[in-house]
Amino acid sequence: MHKMIREHFAPAFNMGQLGDSAVIRIPIINDAVGSPELAFTTDSYVVSPLFFPGGNIGDLAINGTVNDLSMAGSTPLYIATGFIIEEGFPVNDLRRVIASMAEAAKKAGVSVVAGDTKVVDKGKGDGLFINTSGIGIITGGCDLGPHRVMEGDKVIISGPIGNHGIAVMAERNGLAFDPPVVSDTAALNGLVAEMLGISGAVHMMRDPTRGGVATTLKEIALESGRCISINEQLLPVPDGVRGACDLLGLDPLYVANEGILLAIVGSGEAARLIEKMKGHPLGAGAAVIGEVCCGESRDRGMLLLKTVIGGTRIIDMLAGEQLPRIC
Amino acid sequence: MHKMIREHFAPAFNMGQLGDSAVIRIPIINDAVGSPELAFTTDSYVVSPLFFPGGNIGDLAINGTVNDLSMAGSTPLYIATGFIIEEGFPVNDLRRVIASMAEAAKKAGVSVVAGDTKVVDKGKGDGLFINTSGIGIITGGCDLGPHRVMEGDKVIISGPIGNHGIAVMAERNGLAFDPPVVSDTAALNGLVAEMLGISGAVHMMRDPTRGGVATTLKEIALESGRCISINEQLLPVPDGVRGACDLLGLDPLYVANEGILLAIVGSGEAARLIEKMKGHPLGAGAAVIGEVCCGESRDRGMLLLKTVIGGTRIIDMLAGEQLPRIC
Repeated sequence: MHKMIREHFAPAFNMGQLGDSAVIRIPIINDAVGSPELAFTTDSYVVSPLFFPGGNIGDLAINGTVNDLSMAGSTPLYIATGFIIEEGFPVNDLRRVIASMAEAAKKAGVSVVAGDTKVVDKGKGDGLFINTSGIGIITGGCDLGPHRVMEGDKVIISGPIGNHGIAVMAERNGLAFDPPVVSDTAALNGLVAEMLGISGAVHMMRDPTRGGVATTLKEIALESGRCISINEQLLPVPDGVRGACDLLGLDPLYVANEGILLAIVGSGEAARLIEKMKGHPLGAGAAVIGEVCCGESRDRGMLLLKTVIGGTRIIDMLAGEQLPRIC
Repeated sequence: MHKMIREHFAPAFNMGQLGDSAVIRIPIINDAVGSPELAFTTDSYVVSPLFFPGGNIGDLAINGTVNDLSMAGSTPLYIATGFIIEEGFPVNDLRRVIASMAEAAKKAGVSVVAGDTKVVDKGKGDGLFINTSGIGIITGGCDLGPHRVMEGDKVIISGPIGNHGIAVMAERNGLAFDPPVVSDTAALNGLVAEMLGISGAVHMMRDPTRGGVATTLKEIALESGRCISINEQLLPVPDGVRGACDLLGLDPLYVANEGILLAIVGSGEAARLIEKMKGHPLGAGAAVIGEVCCGESRDRGMLLLKTVIGGTRIIDMLAGEQLPRIC
């Protein structure tokens, strides 16, 4: 197994060898003043099943880490990956996963520079778990975060919601929906680069993965101490996702996504941003779905949903996970 | 579980919050010319059992990543960690592991800046797996690697061999040895800093973890294209390890270590290095155990052991792992 992995890993990622550490070089950014700032992130992937419509654990792991780095406003550069393989895991499946990772990395323009593999005995894992950690460089002048979320800011979503969660759940349970639902797993760094091109327009970004749009916006509301209000009518829920959610009693607001982002942006720049985003394949469905409102002091940290029938619902985080092992 | 982890992780590691990415700053090194060079590494830990004499999976994961960064000649700075937790894993055990990680990080002078947790269903994991990835900065003028391994170089080991592997194996199988064997898990960055203080003396370093001293030296022989010869009589095998290996039919040369290093050093500087290493608690047992020899062209990439009884044994890598899940 060990030999097999070395034979497949190293060539797939163009690594000369799998040493203890990779030596990487951080490009000098012209406008950087003082010491360079980097984004550093890690995520483990335990998605079940490993293969699902639209992707597999391999591209999911690369894209997820690229996106985490992108949300911090950084340019993703390097990825290190750790595999935990259950004894008896089919070699062909491992090959497929590695090929997907290599392809996703190439597409996103990042280099997989370090790797590690561990094998656990049969029954002590679940086929394959993957960890990816990543490094991105933050170019000067990009200040993102909850401190920049202001009253009047608009909430932008880059595309339709719920596809990843429903695709994985359907595959896990042997369900088929019409129209079929396919994971949206994708690297958002290209779209983010376009958005950050409009200087200062984006105040904060986050990708609504585990816990979906509701959880992510609630986190932003809590961290910024603002009240966020979104409009149900403006939420882009594809028909397939809507149907699956109706059938299964799920709320699409809590279903995981992997290739869309939420951005809190200055109200004056929202229209320009949407226009720019629509020019990118992953931003074709970009839309304003709500805003940061003033509210009473008791509304600070609240997430409100204006429902289709005209009411207002308070949205909270779920106590547990609606769909476990979705990423 | 999720809430519990956030409550324990963030305070233990002094993280304000567990965001998608940590923003880190790379200190400017005075003698760095051009863009800064970093070391980047990742490792998953699947050690079984999780707790063993001398440590647990937590300090093992921190020390292991610190050591991988140190072997590249870098100063370890930042660590990101991913936890894969099996449903039902005792909260108190998780607390102990996190506390050990925090303590090990503090001792090694590194910051744990990012984290991720995933929970898998009961029977789909084995209590806890931990991934740690790390970033270190390479200060100017430090050139290490197989290309620097030269004929006549000395092979230095920093301390006694076999302790980690035997300690874990004994715990796993409910065995007790007299004298007791305790894991040597430790962060080597302090010792390495001392060694690199003698400019240019160290040509290459590696820590003989999985596969032990034999596998690591064989790798160095292969990568450098040199022949390495070590002397069995000079190998520091503690009595407890020797006894356990005799009893169990293991070869201490292949048993995993976690807190020692192998260095290939210039022959003229070996004595000074040993002296300097002995001044550090983790280098008290430092000794020359062999050398890089010329050999015939057919000896390139070979590892030879001069046995106690005067013969020469060719040492190869093991086909499988002698002790699985040792780290």
